[in-house]
Amino acid sequence: MFFTTIASVMFPRMENTYNFKVGMTCSGCSGAVTRILSKTEGVKSFDISLEKQTVSVVAAGLTQEQVFETIKKSGKPTEII
Amino acid sequence: MFFTTIASVMFPRMENTYNFKVGMTCSGCSGAVTRILSKTEGVKSFDISLEKQTVSVVAAGLTQEQVFETIKKSGKPTEII
Repeated sequence: MFFTTIASVMFPRMENTYNFKVGMTCSGCSGAVTRILSKTEGVKSFDISLEKQTVSVVAAGLTQEQVFETIKKSGKPTEII
Repeated sequence: MFFTTIASVMFPRMENTYNFKVGMTCSGCSGAVTRILSKTEGVKSFDISLEKQTVSVVAAGLTQEQVFETIKKSGKPTEII
């Protein structure tokens, strides 16, 4: 995590993949996370699994912590995995 | 809305009630809005109806616009009513 943070600051165009566990119980929940990530600058693509309760984000110029805080704003229980 | 905005700026301790229509499809959705509002300074109390798809917020020192933006961060479709 330390090195990806350093790398994302030094090479803002480099893409990183970050994985999170997010408590989502219905398609409304995953839809909310979709809306948030779609609007976040630097997020290149993402994959949400309602079944596995996971969110995988490919981002450029964003640290894992920044993406974590963005998803957490949804009000869903979120943790870095 | 104009007068409540002016009033909330002039009398920050005055309480106002703001109503919103929020697209929530399960208890996970309403739980997310609950977590967000619980953490928002100035929010005195709130009432969430999953059945009616409404959120009523009693706030002090916050404009309707500020509460609207706070709820919107959940990623749920939100409108002022």
